[in-house]
Amino acid sequence: MRVQIIGFGIIGKGFAAVLKDKRDVLRQRYGLDIKVVSISDITGTVVNENGVDIQKALQVMEKSGRLIDYPGAVEMGGLEAIEEVDADLVLEFTPSNIKTGEPGLSHMLKAMEHGKHVVTSNKGPLVLKFRTLKDTAAKNNVQFKFEATVGGAVPIINLAKENLSCDEIVAIEGILNGTTNYILTRMHKEERPFEMVLKEAQELGIAETDPSYDIDGIDTASKLVILANSIMGINATYQDVKIQGIRKITPEAIELAKDDGYVIKLIGEVKDSHLEVAPRLVPVTHPLNVEGVLNVALLKTDVAGDITIVGKGAGAIETNSAVLSDIISVWRNGNNRNDGKDYP
Amino acid sequence: MRVQIIGFGIIGKGFAAVLKDKRDVLRQRYGLDIKVVSISDITGTVVNENGVDIQKALQVMEKSGRLIDYPGAVEMGGLEAIEEVDADLVLEFTPSNIKTGEPGLSHMLKAMEHGKHVVTSNKGPLVLKFRTLKDTAAKNNVQFKFEATVGGAVPIINLAKENLSCDEIVAIEGILNGTTNYILTRMHKEERPFEMVLKEAQELGIAETDPSYDIDGIDTASKLVILANSIMGINATYQDVKIQGIRKITPEAIELAKDDGYVIKLIGEVKDSHLEVAPRLVPVTHPLNVEGVLNVALLKTDVAGDITIVGKGAGAIETNSAVLSDIISVWRNGNNRNDGKDYP
Repeated sequence: MRVQIIGFGIIGKGFAAVLKDKRDVLRQRYGLDIKVVSISDITGTVVNENGVDIQKALQVMEKSGRLIDYPGAVEMGGLEAIEEVDADLVLEFTPSNIKTGEPGLSHMLKAMEHGKHVVTSNKGPLVLKFRTLKDTAAKNNVQFKFEATVGGAVPIINLAKENLSCDEIVAIEGILNGTTNYILTRMHKEERPFEMVLKEAQELGIAETDPSYDIDGIDTASKLVILANSIMGINATYQDVKIQGIRKITPEAIELAKDDGYVIKLIGEVKDSHLEVAPRLVPVTHPLNVEGVLNVALLKTDVAGDITIVGKGAGAIETNSAVLSDIISVWRNGNNRNDGKDYP
Repeated sequence: MRVQIIGFGIIGKGFAAVLKDKRDVLRQRYGLDIKVVSISDITGTVVNENGVDIQKALQVMEKSGRLIDYPGAVEMGGLEAIEEVDADLVLEFTPSNIKTGEPGLSHMLKAMEHGKHVVTSNKGPLVLKFRTLKDTAAKNNVQFKFEATVGGAVPIINLAKENLSCDEIVAIEGILNGTTNYILTRMHKEERPFEMVLKEAQELGIAETDPSYDIDGIDTASKLVILANSIMGINATYQDVKIQGIRKITPEAIELAKDDGYVIKLIGEVKDSHLEVAPRLVPVTHPLNVEGVLNVALLKTDVAGDITIVGKGAGAIETNSAVLSDIISVWRNGNNRNDGKDYP
């Protein structure tokens, strides 16, 4: 399988590192031989039809942080690479932009139009144009997989689509953002105010300098849109989510909750086509009460009942478990790709 | 797809009930039309190549509890039905026997030898003869799926094999028996002795009259063997498990644990080819701390890190979510079944 990597930041480099370790497993377990025929970042593109030397690309990035410094790299953008290089699958790893979806949106559409499968960790395009992307994939007979966009390593979407395949998912609740969960967990345990814990989280690199994307619930809302659309067949966008963040949560509120056996968590919920992100009381012993940077999703289903899945919601290596699982799934479905079915 | 039901007790009748509701979903979502061509219980067999009337079979069972009372039913055993009736897949739902594996073991092997896929909820044969069953399935080019044998509705095996498909599962820990978890949860909450809580659980029908299968860890050990073999590629049997049950757990021990922020849970663990069932201390906020009759499995993996899944470990309806998911999986893989791959 010839694969193009578009975007060579944290996730892209993590992919290269994991692929290096997993080549034998992929070959032995699935008969899958992944050849990376191009890598693009914002500085340029490395192309090699016989397979780019991944180890070398990682070394170049460690040294200069610019892919153009790879010997033989050319000043070609991601879009052009998708147009020019022959490949079966495009890995879209550029940064998420939930205002325009770009550059990921154009990359994904272009890839599909060129008959290439798309696997991505980039939320932006899906939050804005989920229906367009699904339709374009169907029209061009390619597969479109995006497990890594929600919950990092936690296979929420594939769990719902593949392992609860006869179930109707009637509602989803989850903690989909590790940064806010970390802050709330520390506020709960240490009884300290929001600003103080946020500041420490920023110093530790868990929260960003501008933390609003996380703490105002924007990231959770984006992921909720993707879950609602992909698992429950809703056609929602970011505008449809009612959002409240965690800025106003006081130590007093947490203390009150604690006294009654509850924790306060930032929960994303979709139910009856209604999408909402808000701080909510969760019983201490409820499966949704997970600590620190963990993510969790609870799927309410008609046959299996409630199924909850917990794991790491981020991480350069961990997230690539979802990416590789998606690639393997594309590979497995590959033989049947022209039968018109909507593969999960 | 022509399906035979062997064993028409709680799970078999639950399957019939769920299938009735899900016919349209299966057809629309997967193009799958399930025709039940025979049903067998200990009294006899109903055969109809155009499809047995499931509703009627359920009514007969409700009335007399004997399938032989179905008009036209014949005195044919399960094994003979497998030999005589033309079908694509056998659902093996007879009661689990971990001493001999029978009658399920003979049913499964016979089905495979006749080129029929097997989907089952029956642990016994897998605990005793996992390797034989896998080899026989491979030799006869049929698929063998058994998600419902462990964790009821919780898709532990398929999660590991399908959604963490590039990961190495290095260890598994779990609460795999709802009865013991219910007893321990109530002992923890109510600070009452084991015997008293057990007696109430028996009155509620949560524990059996002879409770040793559950409380002595036998059931947990059986499920652990299946997880170890199927997910981690070990070749273990029941004899390889070191087992300690929950009879000796005192309110004092639970109280001590509680004071330190722990709960006591009956945990099955497989790690470094070592299988063990024993009461263990679990931090209150750990994902393995789930209450009541819930089951949970934590998969330790090399790429994704720890992934935990929680849900109902039993139930006539719930368990059939796993059964139907397995059938759908067989159907999806069906076109490729002769390519020699070891489908998950």
